[in-house]
Amino acid sequence: MNYPKGIKNKKSDSVCFSNRGMKLESELNSTNEYYLQSDIACIHKKPTPIKVVDVSYNSCNDVLIHKAYFEKQSTLDYNGIYKGKYIDFEAKETKNNNYFPLRNIHDHQIKHIQKVIEMGGICFLIVRFTSKNLTFYLDGNKLLSFIKNNERKSIPIDYFKQEGHLIKDKLRPTIDYIEIINKVHFGGE
Amino acid sequence: MNYPKGIKNKKSDSVCFSNRGMKLESELNSTNEYYLQSDIACIHKKPTPIKVVDVSYNSCNDVLIHKAYFEKQSTLDYNGIYKGKYIDFEAKETKNNNYFPLRNIHDHQIKHIQKVIEMGGICFLIVRFTSKNLTFYLDGNKLLSFIKNNERKSIPIDYFKQEGHLIKDKLRPTIDYIEIINKVHFGGE
Repeated sequence: MNYPKGIKNKKSDSVCFSNRGMKLESELNSTNEYYLQSDIACIHKKPTPIKVVDVSYNSCNDVLIHKAYFEKQSTLDYNGIYKGKYIDFEAKETKNNNYFPLRNIHDHQIKHIQKVIEMGGICFLIVRFTSKNLTFYLDGNKLLSFIKNNERKSIPIDYFKQEGHLIKDKLRPTIDYIEIINKVHFGGE
Repeated sequence: MNYPKGIKNKKSDSVCFSNRGMKLESELNSTNEYYLQSDIACIHKKPTPIKVVDVSYNSCNDVLIHKAYFEKQSTLDYNGIYKGKYIDFEAKETKNNNYFPLRNIHDHQIKHIQKVIEMGGICFLIVRFTSKNLTFYLDGNKLLSFIKNNERKSIPIDYFKQEGHLIKDKLRPTIDYIEIINKVHFGGE
């Protein structure tokens, strides 16, 4: 794993940095691994950006980082290829029962989503409401249209139910978002 | 910048970690920025993977990394979208006059290139021979075919000249690899 898996906020025992949650992240990793092994799709999580401030060298291949900080991802966290198409998505969880707070998605990420869609890519959110254990796929177009037409700073769960797609629990792959992509973008059922 | 730009090996004054070279990296960043601003393509460098070993917390948004190590990228360093297609590439430089040593590309990266091509993506190398200041585009197919048909552990510059494409020096964008993609993959000239 290339990112700070297992690094937890000791106070709340939840992942502090990404608001993604370790369980969701681990399920997505195993889902992507399944897609890769089954020659279905090649999608990876990007490493967490880290600003390195101070290092020491023992040799070329032995560099120890002494001081560094986590940074915000300027794009989305996961990207790759499915059926020749560019795939790009972000995964988040919320403890909130009925709303997904939009502060979870930064402005530059919204711009990025817009750009990718304009260029013909497939872009979406995976959002889990942890208290209800419901995981939704929300297409980038639906996200942009909500932001355009609403003043509010959070998306109600009903919007996910109406405009998004519930990702049903499965054994393998755990979060079968490709099934939803087939429905939404390839006219499949 | 999300990666350790400016971190140099103090002994040799060359970038130790990626074998990419700061100049090539910086030229590719400005090229990608140009493509993005001009709505041509949306291609980003992935953050360098870093294994975080020890951190301390002041608050949720203030996490200091005390101990960490650079890791190898399991995929390629740059990816994104152009004309709806998935783009994926690696950039390397060599000080060698006549050969590009294949040890610069790891086995799992070769497998990744194979996978991306099978899935309909566009995958390639950008290789700069610094002593001659020549920068080539070598399509992933040509790389795989060289590896399949040769025992040798380095690719001669003549192979780049014959099977690759010289990327001419330009003002803006500096490394216009999209021009080559148009030739190779979109039948353009």
